[in-house]
Order: sequence, then structure tokens, then C-alpha cells
Amino acid sequence: MPSRSSALQPLLAFGAHPDDIEFGCGGVVAKETRAGRAAYFVICSRGEASSHGKPMQRVAEAKKSAGLLGATVDFIKLDGDAHLEVRVAHAIKLAIIIRRTRPGIVLAPSVVENQHPDHPRLGQLVRDACRLARYGGVRELRKLPSHAIDQLFYYAVTPEAEPPGVTPVLIDVSPPDVLKAWTIAMQAHASQAAARNYVELQLTRARLRGLCAGCGHAIALFPGDPLVFESLAQAGRSARRF
Amino acid sequence: MPSRSSALQPLLAFGAHPDDIEFGCGGVVAKETRAGRAAYFVICSRGEASSHGKPMQRVAEAKKSAGLLGATVDFIKLDGDAHLEVRVAHAIKLAIIIRRTRPGIVLAPSVVENQHPDHPRLGQLVRDACRLARYGGVRELRKLPSHAIDQLFYYAVTPEAEPPGVTPVLIDVSPPDVLKAWTIAMQAHASQAAARNYVELQLTRARLRGLCAGCGHAIALFPGDPLVFESLAQAGRSARRF
Amino acid sequence: MPSRSSALQPLLAFGAHPDDIEFGCGGVVAKETRAGRAAYFVICSRGEASSHGKPMQRVAEAKKSAGLLGATVDFIKLDGDAHLEVRVAHAIKLAIIIRRTRPGIVLAPSVVENQHPDHPRLGQLVRDACRLARYGGVRELRKLPSHAIDQLFYYAVTPEAEPPGVTPVLIDVSPPDVLKAWTIAMQAHASQAAARNYVELQLTRARLRGLCAGCGHAIALFPGDPLVFESLAQAGRSARRF
Amino acid sequence: MPSRSSALQPLLAFGAHPDDIEFGCGGVVAKETRAGRAAYFVICSRGEASSHGKPMQRVAEAKKSAGLLGATVDFIKLDGDAHLEVRVAHAIKLAIIIRRTRPGIVLAPSVVENQHPDHPRLGQLVRDACRLARYGGVRELRKLPSHAIDQLFYYAVTPEAEPPGVTPVLIDVSPPDVLKAWTIAMQAHASQAAARNYVELQLTRARLRGLCAGCGHAIALFPGDPLVFESLAQAGRSARRF
Amino acid sequence: MPSRSSALQPLLAFGAHPDDIEFGCGGVVAKETRAGRAAYFVICSRGEASSHGKPMQRVAEAKKSAGLLGATVDFIKLDGDAHLEVRVAHAIKLAIIIRRTRPGIVLAPSVVENQHPDHPRLGQLVRDACRLARYGGVRELRKLPSHAIDQLFYYAVTPEAEPPGVTPVLIDVSPPDVLKAWTIAMQAHASQAAARNYVELQLTRARLRGLCAGCGHAIALFPGDPLVFESLAQAGRSARRF
Amino acid sequence: MPSRSSALQPLLAFGAHPDDIEFGCGGVVAKETRAGRAAYFVICSRGEASSHGKPMQRVAEAKKSAGLLGATVDFIKLDGDAHLEVRVAHAIKLAIIIRRTRPGIVLAPSVVENQHPDHPRLGQLVRDACRLARYGGVRELRKLPSHAIDQLFYYAVTPEAEPPGVTPVLIDVSPPDVLKAWTIAMQAHASQAAARNYVELQLTRARLRGLCAGCGHAIALFPGDPLVFESLAQAGRSARRF
Repeated sequence: MPSRSSALQPLLAFGAHPDDIEFGCGGVVAKETRAGRAAYFVICSRGEASSHGKPMQRVAEAKKSAGLLGATVDFIKLDGDAHLEVRVAHAIKLAIIIRRTRPGIVLAPSVVENQHPDHPRLGQLVRDACRLARYGGVRELRKLPSHAIDQLFYYAVTPEAEPPGVTPVLIDVSPPDVLKAWTIAMQAHASQAAARNYVELQLTRARLRGLCAGCGHAIALFPGDPLVFESLAQAGRSARRF
Repeated sequence: MPSRSSALQPLLAFGAHPDDIEFGCGGVVAKETRAGRAAYFVICSRGEASSHGKPMQRVAEAKKSAGLLGATVDFIKLDGDAHLEVRVAHAIKLAIIIRRTRPGIVLAPSVVENQHPDHPRLGQLVRDACRLARYGGVRELRKLPSHAIDQLFYYAVTPEAEPPGVTPVLIDVSPPDVLKAWTIAMQAHASQAAARNYVELQLTRARLRGLCAGCGHAIALFPGDPLVFESLAQAGRSARRF
Repeated sequence: MPSRSSALQPLLAFGAHPDDIEFGCGGVVAKETRAGRAAYFVICSRGEASSHGKPMQRVAEAKKSAGLLGATVDFIKLDGDAHLEVRVAHAIKLAIIIRRTRPGIVLAPSVVENQHPDHPRLGQLVRDACRLARYGGVRELRKLPSHAIDQLFYYAVTPEAEPPGVTPVLIDVSPPDVLKAWTIAMQAHASQAAARNYVELQLTRARLRGLCAGCGHAIALFPGDPLVFESLAQAGRSARRF
Repeated sequence: MPSRSSALQPLLAFGAHPDDIEFGCGGVVAKETRAGRAAYFVICSRGEASSHGKPMQRVAEAKKSAGLLGATVDFIKLDGDAHLEVRVAHAIKLAIIIRRTRPGIVLAPSVVENQHPDHPRLGQLVRDACRLARYGGVRELRKLPSHAIDQLFYYAVTPEAEPPGVTPVLIDVSPPDVLKAWTIAMQAHASQAAARNYVELQLTRARLRGLCAGCGHAIALFPGDPLVFESLAQAGRSARRF
Repeated sequence: MPSRSSALQPLLAFGAHPDDIEFGCGGVVAKETRAGRAAYFVICSRGEASSHGKPMQRVAEAKKSAGLLGATVDFIKLDGDAHLEVRVAHAIKLAIIIRRTRPGIVLAPSVVENQHPDHPRLGQLVRDACRLARYGGVRELRKLPSHAIDQLFYYAVTPEAEPPGVTPVLIDVSPPDVLKAWTIAMQAHASQAAARNYVELQLTRARLRGLCAGCGHAIALFPGDPLVFESLAQAGRSARRF
Repeated sequence: MPSRSSALQPLLAFGAHPDDIEFGCGGVVAKETRAGRAAYFVICSRGEASSHGKPMQRVAEAKKSAGLLGATVDFIKLDGDAHLEVRVAHAIKLAIIIRRTRPGIVLAPSVVENQHPDHPRLGQLVRDACRLARYGGVRELRKLPSHAIDQLFYYAVTPEAEPPGVTPVLIDVSPPDVLKAWTIAMQAHASQAAARNYVELQLTRARLRGLCAGCGHAIALFPGDPLVFESLAQAGRSARRF
């Protein structure tokens, strides 16, 4: 009996590289799809500049991983891996996707600068795209009806990317099936998982958040704008264990 | 069919002066009591140092106002109006009240320093009291079973008291009966309402928040700790109108 | 007997869209022109991407509105509405305008990112242009004598655009003729005023600032650099009403 | 022809130790008294815990120094040097002084914590005292009419005490007679000036601010609340030299 | 061949409760004592207000744990567990200890407010005590020669206590003997370790820091003041793995 | 017997204009080269847009100045003085230089926006280049082996460029030969030194930092990432003089 539209509207997640969404917030996606929400991934490079893994392998890994999380995945070309720039044409391309998929919730990498340069730039582009998708007069977007999303959340691929000065929302990803789906989705990025301790990094982060939140594991999302609540019943409980 | 305990647990609001709760977050209380949640007010002075209104009048106004909001009200004595200091004995007194009322949600004035000095001090005392109420071994508290609240929210009596660096949660107080109950509850503090434009100040603030949130009026609360969500269905929509 | 040059030097305001200056700081302009200061508006698009109003209508509205505020208005073309990018060539174009008009005070939209993407980008371009206008050796600027402005102030088109960590200066716009000129100047943007509650938004903001400042209405400007005072007589009074 | 009351109302400066005002903002006082404003110093200890100088010598130095700046000086006893605590009784004592002297401008040490512990505590006490002086009903204050100051400025005794997140106002203290009066007033605290490079520290700070402000020397003050301006003519020029 | 005095001067760590030092920075202590530095623990309560463990047991656990880390431990009485207030008399008591032990490095709980109320208060007291220990004229301290420490570092007992806006220094605690000593020292607080996942919490935090720092485990300390380096050879490497 | 590689690895400093490195951190370079570390300067324009000095003169000044500091200097062309934009192609060009020179430490202008627009943009480009130099698969970089630097430090050409929220590291540049080398290196930029008080500005800044650090002169560098220490012996002493 969800009274708010976002409960039914799809989730749209953007990643700069084939593994960003999974490493940054894959557990949240697993939880949402298990709750019946549709999830679409849009990946803006094929990881062709990373130290490990060929593009074809990366694409295959991403498809397998998205499947494990219950999401569909599309690849688009902007400037290429490690070459992304902030261009309005890119934001418009992303806004077209938003108008087509009409999501309630959008996930994007955080705009904190001190990380892989593609991440904050994609975060900026998605933020702008969410606005452009709503404006009525943008020439390139006119063929599709405008769309206002409910909420933009930023995810942080690494701890350094967590934005200071934004109070996060912690999503409980403790149910064993959720945690397992997330873990094997990360491991599906075998070329990356083998290179550095990425999977351990994310599980360690989630365990630390979970210990503070009083649950097994949790993932922090950073709201782009204040949340609007009907009442405090929506607030639930908070992370205050220690 | 609320699955989280806070939906049913009472709300406990603390105010330093007889009108602080109403001016700072009365609309939220009106909405919660209309949704069936019990609300208790605890007021820590009788406003004896304010420029207008005698203590007996202030107490009467507060009782009338709480009634209009559907809340009960109690007065306690700490150091007196304009004399509040941060003492552990005060925090323990407040912790005893928390253990007795066992609230899910606690509301307190924000700890931003540049406002009436009693406000941030009471905010600090309530914050500490919420922890003390949970600890098992505090001698003065042992007679009552320990209690862990779900969430502490700060309210801001004036705009200057809104804490920077904390993402607020906006509560929609637009329903006409809610807005009306809040307005007359503020007006019930007749000695204060007559002196400065307090009622207009609060309604103007709430209208500005409402315009940004896409509703009539809204009140910002500032979470003491990150919210923990079961899923993004809880997130609802965000304030992104302009 | 103004001893500082800025008292007589013109004001130059930049807007990304035909209505940004009026909605963001029109009351300040009304007050300055009434005090005898010349005001020039430079608008960097014709609003061709907005949801409401055709470009020709928008231009006509802006001309009418500027006239009501006592300002002249010019339109320049950068990348077009909703397409603005941060390019040095744009900043140089703006620097040429600064060298031509030789303002004491420059007004620009704030550089806070979470608003219409054109706004912070224009803010950045104006900030850079103010510096370029001062440098002696920029090839494209050599035909015009260099010019150092007295002060750059940012205005915020919406509350979200107010920069945290910058202490604002509040300009009292309470005199009835000032408030009226501002209001009808905003209403002159009829295509926009009809669509959302823009006029009410701005008057609500100004009323809230005014209530805090102890006057009728006030508009916050955000200084780009610390103010230099001859003495504390310049400081005037502060907003400390509650 | 000053239109604002603060131009004529006296300045009241508080110091925790006999030399704090001079080292922190003596040049500003010199400039104000030369402009005809009365200045009162209130010093809250006799420096009895400092490494150098006996209390009697410290008091004598402070009297001489205040005279050189054109200010009167009074000593009050709170908890004693290095023993200051934040007590409401102290704030009330300071509020009585504010009601008696009825200043337009109040100067106090900044509330930044990482400095001599007496400094931020006195800053807090003065901040609270300015509010208490305005409230009508504080029992201990009733004999004196309430008073609302125009503006509270914080000064920083050392660079570490400059509050982040507050845009300072820079006061030009370059006129030779002002700079000289300030210098000899600092040197008058002979017991301190001999011990560490305090005088050089302050002149170096002021020279650095002056180089940025485009004048000889300048002192930064940090406003407690936003300034309210009648018009932008009051804004003057800003520090934008490099 | 250490050229700086701190290499040989002892380390002095303060804890509000018997287990705070171990949980907050025990691994750092283990590393320092293994490098030949003396370490003294001063604990300001016997944990008599905690949910688990009797005071005698807590004291015994602390003694055992300190021994495992190679540190001595002393207990002092301030206001008692969960009753600590910020009083100058307490700071003086701590300053006497500093003058007696003459440490190069002092460790204290961070002053972030949203944690156990005793923690930030002890952090403030230690910060003040470090200054008082240096001042020449504090009556209660005169019997002991004044002492200037080299550096004050704050530790965070829980993640919430990590101060925003301070760049941490990460101490590599990866060597197996260090990690093991730290782990068994935490486990020695058996009454606490059994109650909540404290040991796992700290090892998870340290593992996350270690993954970012490119080593096994690391602990973040937060400097009270900027570090002064002889040359960049001192800077070592930084945490930039992802 | 330096155990960390950075003690021997070269230093690579980037400047947007011929004098930025010297004015921003020349004293640090002088100290490092005197300690036997190789230093390379890369300058990204010939200062052709500055108010004073022709490009050929600027280049000659920079060569002379670098020589006085014991550094080599190279000039590269990006977009030209006052025309720098953030382009991936530029970052890749800088990453090639990093891979060729294989520095332990990299110095770049801070990314604070409110300064000469070329400065923060170069800071961003260098920050990105340090990451790109480490990634294995960037097409344009494949001919050179990847390289991970030890640490990126930002320098601030002017006080306004010092990043808030980053704890600086202060480098003692007090030895007479270091201070003299730095001073004459700055003076070697005769075309600039004559125009404004740049040399005095920098020496005043360094003297102020030195007074706080307890040495003659010091320069603040701002670490891009937390420092990782083997032990607290590395921490040395801190700036806590007042």
C-alpha cells in the first residue's frame, strides 16, 4: 500500500565504468529489485583505460553482474574512460535517458573531486540532466515528455568520495540474500576484483556502517536535496548505537 | 500497517521556554497527533525572563497551546529562564523523563550557539540525556529501565538556529487543519505573539520551505544521526522545485 | 558627500536568463537606481529552453522589467539557454563588457552548483571576468583600458543557491516605492510569474530576511571578497532581532 | 552627517587579559577614537596566571595602553586568569555593563576553541550578555533599561582564533598616527612584549591583511550577525588585490 | 638518530573510561611502545555508569590491557563516569599530570559533541590542560616546572567522533605483533567486548583505513595543530590507493 | 638512512605562470634541493597575459630563478596565460611528464576558485594527472610505465588560495641560506616584483607562519590526501606557540 509514487517508479543508476554501480551501491540495488522495483543501469564507458581487463571482458562482466542484481544494463559512449569532460551535450544525452525511463530515483557517483576524475564529472552531468529532463523548452529534448524525478541520491565508490556536509541515508542491506547477491555481483567483475581488494573494501565499508546502524551491513547514500516527509513515521530509526 | 516501532511510539518534545516548541515545530506536532501519535511537551522554564508576559500567564498559554496541538505538557525547573547552564544533573533529570515516557522520537532545540543561550544548552542537555537514558549503570537512573530512542531531531526556533552542514528533513504541514491548529497554537501564546511578529516569522519560514518542497507549508527538522532506511521506498520525494 | 568611488560608479548585473536578475536581486537594483546609481543588465540567453514563454516574449518582458527598475538591458549570446559551458572565451566577452561599463559593483548569480546549471556557470564566468578585466596583458582585451571593480556580490535566484560559509550582507528593500518597483518588475516577467509561484517565492524570502533584519523586506547578497571599511561607522547595524 | 546611530554610539571592548584587546584589535580602537567615538575597555582578569608580569604591573600597563588608544579601562573579576568558566552569572555581570555603557558596537574575543581557554569562554559570555541586555525580564538586570546593541564583532588575538566560515570585515588602520598609536599601545604591555614576539606578530598579521586589502595595514573583525545595509554605497571596496 | 625530541619523549594518553584508549587508538600505542617510547595512560573514571562490568572488574581489565600494550596506567577521579563536566579545576589536575610526565605527544578523545558526553568534555579538558601546563603563572601549578608538549592528537572512539574539517594522520598498525597486541588488549576489556561488537568495530575501522592507506590496518589520529616539518622527507607517503 | 622512498625521489612542481612556484612555495624547494632532492619545474604558460613583463623576459626570469633554487625548468603550452581550461588532453600531457620524471612529491597550485582562474584549473589538472599516471590502460600513456606518486601537496600563491578544511603542513624555511635563496629567486622575477609587493607579500606570509610555528619563517603546504606515518616519531612538533 505505498502511498508515494517512488515506491513503484523505477530506479535509474549511472556509472562511469562497468563496475562503479556495483562497488558503490550494488547492495541497495539488490534490495530494491527484491522489493519489486525495476532497476536500469547506464554505463558511460567500457572501462578501456583501467589497469586490468579488456573492454569486451568488462562489458561481459557488467552484464552478468547487473543480471545478478536484477537490473538491466545499457552502455553509452560519452568521451571514453578516463576522458570524460563536463559538456552540456553529455547532460542532454543523459536527460534523454531519464525522459525515456522516467525513474522515481536516480543514483549517480558523488561530485567530490578527489577520486577518479570521471566519477565527479558524471555526478555533475547526472545532476544537471535531472534538471534538464524537467525543463520544457530544451530543443534536443522536445520529442519526449518532460519528467521530474523524485530524488537524486549520490553514491560513493570509495570512502574518499563521501561528501562532507551532507547527512547520509543508510540503507540496510543485511538480509542474507541481499548481501549475497551484492557480493557475487561485485565478484562478477572478476578482472577488477582480482587486482585490488575492491570487494573487501566495499564489504568492510558496509560492515562498518552496519555496526553503527545496528544491523549487519548498510550502504550510505547522499541525498541531492532535502527529503520531504509526510510524517515522522517515515523517518524510521537512526544510526545511534555507540 | 506500520512496520517500524516509531510509528506508534510517542513523541517527546523539549522546550526551554513556554512557546519554543510551538514556534519551532508546532506544525509537526499537529501532524503527528492527527496521525494518532501521542505527544508530550516538557518545558524547562516558565519564561520568567522574557520581555513580555508573566510566568503564570505563560504557563496558561502553554497549556492551552499544547491542548490545541493534542499534546500534554509538563513544566520542570532547571536553572530558570535565561539562566540555564549545562550540568550533568540536568541531563539526568531529562533522562529520567525519557525513561518514563519511552518515546520513539525526541525533539529538541538545535545546538547552534548564536540564539537565545537557553536554546543550544537545552539542545545539548537533551542530546546527552538521550544517551544517558540508554546506559545501564547510571546510579540516578537505575530505578527505571533503560530506553533507546529511535531518533533525535533538532528544531530551530529562528532561522539563525538552523544548523549548517546538516541535511534537513522537511515535514509537510500543508493540510488546512494542521496549518490552522499550528497557527492558533502559536497565537495562544498571546503575550509573545503580540510583542514581535513571531507568528508571521514562523508561517513565512514554513511557506518558504513549502514553496521549495512543492507543497503549501513545510517545517525543517535536523536529524541528530543518519536515518536508517529499510529501502528507498521510505525516502519519498525531495525538495527540488526550482 | 560619499567618499568612496563605488557610491557613484555604476552597477553591472549579469543574468543567465531574462528574469534571473529581477528574481534574484531586483529589489537591490531598485534601491540603487533610486539613490542615483546607474544600473546595467547583461542577459546571456533569451530563455529559449524554459518551460514557459517564447524568446521574443521573454526579451520584451526583460526590457519592460529593467525599465521599471531604472536599468538598461543588453542581451548577449554565449552558448544559449540550458547550454552554457565554462569557456575562457565567454569570460573574455564578459570582461570586455566590464571594461566598457567600468562598474563599481558587479552582481552575478552564485556559484553554488545545485541549481539551474547555467547559474553557477555564469557566476564562475563573471568571477573570472572581473579578474581578466584587471589584467594588463590579455590579448583580446588590449583595446580597452583595464578596470578594477570595487566589489563582486553574488545573488541567489533561489534559497538553494545561497552559498554556505559566506556571511551575507542584507540590503533593506523596505521602502514602499522600492518594494513596489521590484514587485511589478518581477510581475513583468508574466510568462514565468504565471507558471510557478516565483514572485511569491521572492517576496517570501525577502520578508523572512526582513523579519530577521528588523525591517520590512531585505535581500541577501554574498560578497566575493571581504569588505574593507574605513571605520566601523560603515558597519551599520546587524540582523539580530530574535 | 552619519545617518546610522552606531556612528555616534560608543564602542565597548572586552578582554580576558590586560593585553588582549590591544593585541587583537587595538588598531581598530585607535581609528574609532580618532573619529570621535568613545571607547570603553572591560578587562576580566589582571593576567595573574601569565608567564610574565605581575598583576599590578599588568594593570598599570593596561591603563597606559588604553590611554594611548583614547579608551577608558575597567577591571572586573570573574573567575580569575586561566580559570574562567562559562557561567550565567558572569554573562549577567557583562550585561549590566552593556546596559550601563549602552554601546553601538561590542568587541569580544572569538569563540574559536583552540586558543587560550579564557578567550573563547569570554567570547561566549559576551555573546550571551548582548542578548540578555536586550531581554526585558531578567531579574538581576531590571534596574537598568534594556539595550540592544547594533553589532557584535569578534576579534582574534592570534591567527588560530580567526573563525572559519565567517567572512571578515577588514578595517584599514594604515594612517600613520593610527598605526603608531596601536604600536605604542602594544609596546606599553612591556611585560608581554618582551617575552614573545607579540608586537611583531600583530603587525605582521595586519601588514598581510593590508597587502591583500590594498592598503598599508588592516585588521580583520568577524561579524556576529549579517550586516544590514541601507544601500550598496555602504559596501565600499573589497580586498581583491591579487 | 632521531633529531626531534618527540622521538624519545613519552606518550601520554587520556581516557574517560577504562577502555577508551584501547578502543580508540590502542594500536598506535602498541606501535610506539614497540619502538621504545614510554606510554602512560590516565583514566578519568572507573566506568561505573556503563551498562556492563563493575568498577573493580573494569579497573582490572584496564590494568591488564595497558600491560599488554606496554603502558602504565593511572586512575584519577574527576566527576565520575557519565558525570564529567568542563571545570577549570579538572583541567588543572590534568595539567599537573602533564607537568609530571612531561610527554612529547598527548592523546585525547576528540571534541566532537555527538558521542558519549564524557568524551568530548575530556577532550576539551586535555586541550586546555596542555596550554595551562605551558603557562608560567597558574597558582596551582607553580610547584612543577612548566612544560610544552610537542603535539596533541585526538583519537575517535567511534566513527561518529572523527572531526570533520581536520585532515587526519594515519598510523600504520599492520605489523602482526602490533595488530595482535592491540586485539588482545581490546579483548582484555572482557566486560565490554562481550556486550557489543566493539572489537570488531575497531578492527573493521582500522582495516578500512588500511585498505585506503595501502597497508593492512591503520588508525587515524587528528592533529590539534598543524604539523611543522623540517623537510618533505618527513611527509612520507599518503593514502591514495583508489 | 631514510627508509621511505620519497626521501630520495624527485620533486615535481607545476606552475601556471613563470613565477607561481617561486612565490607560492619557493622556500620549500630551496630547502629540498639543499637536502639533496632533485627538483623539476614545469610551467604552463609564458605569462603573456600579465600586466607586466614580456614573455621572453618572463621565461628568462623563470630560468634564472629556478637555477637559484637548484631546480630545472621546462615550459609547456596548454591554452596560454589567462586562457587555461580543464581539458582531459591537458591532464594527459601532465601525466606524461609525471611518468617521465617519476617524482615522489608533486606540488601544484591549490584548487580554491577565488584566485587567478589559471591557478585552480592547473591544480585540478595536476590532481587528475597524478591519477592518470597511475592507471594502466590510458591509451596516450601506454608507452611509459605507470607511476604512483607518494604525495600531492597544494601550494597557495596568495592567502586567499589557502583551502579551508585542510590541515596544512608547515615547512620550516628559516635557515639563512634557504631564506636568502628563496628571496633572491623571487626577486629574479624582476618584472613582477617591481609591479606589486609580491616579494613582501610572501615573506610576510612566511614570517607569520614562522611566528606561529616557533621558527623564523615557514611555508604552508596542503596535503591532497591524509599522510600515512610509520610511527609518531614522524609527526615531529606542531605549531602551538600562542
